[in-house]
Amino acid sequence: MDKKLNLFNILDKIEDYFSPKIIGEVNDVYIKLAKINGDKIPWHNHENEDEMFYILDGSLLFEIENEPSFMMNTGDMFIVKKGINHRVTSTEECSVLLIENKLTKHTGSVKSEITKSIAQQKL
Amino acid sequence: MDKKLNLFNILDKIEDYFSPKIIGEVNDVYIKLAKINGDKIPWHNHENEDEMFYILDGSLLFEIENEPSFMMNTGDMFIVKKGINHRVTSTEECSVLLIENKLTKHTGSVKSEITKSIAQQKL
Repeated sequence: MDKKLNLFNILDKIEDYFSPKIIGEVNDVYIKLAKINGDKIPWHNHENEDEMFYILDGSLLFEIENEPSFMMNTGDMFIVKKGINHRVTSTEECSVLLIENKLTKHTGSVKSEITKSIAQQKL
Repeated sequence: MDKKLNLFNILDKIEDYFSPKIIGEVNDVYIKLAKINGDKIPWHNHENEDEMFYILDGSLLFEIENEPSFMMNTGDMFIVKKGINHRVTSTEECSVLLIENKLTKHTGSVKSEITKSIAQQKL
């Protein structure tokens, strides 16, 4: 049987920023944890997949193309719908829970210095 | 554009126990919030779908058939794999984030006094 996981205990062990870690699978989606600190995530979209962000700790500036940007704080959730150009940045460490389709590339079709393969996202 | 949601603000407005509320869609899964207080959820399983529980606030006793039961507390996550008989109870109010396939019936094929249709789970 799989075990229960405490998300904050796992976060304590994550040292890399911009590097999502897969912590579980629910049908066709991955559950991931990530820490964001800075502005290294490029503008990107996921052509065919929605993506959920839930803020576990901290604040994240959410930018959506042609929309007002907005700040997400602890307890906030936002779902980026497929095809929508977006970017997230933070000025201090922010911990997020992500729900992404297993096929989703975390920086979309954009390759950047922070882009990780699914294999690199395994805990 | 969909708006960000604060999960704790939504929970403040949920008055019914054992009544999951759909707060978002990510591809083929629903994101739901629910409050559990007591032991009215029957033993059940989801034949073809995994189900994720994340404890936002409180404690939940998790029972899995033929396995030791365990307590989940705030910050804990557990994924019940498809086909596994399970039941959750609490002695005080517990708030959970659920991730379920859109086809998942929240009490599986078991009908009980708390069973809600998907239409009844719309916020």
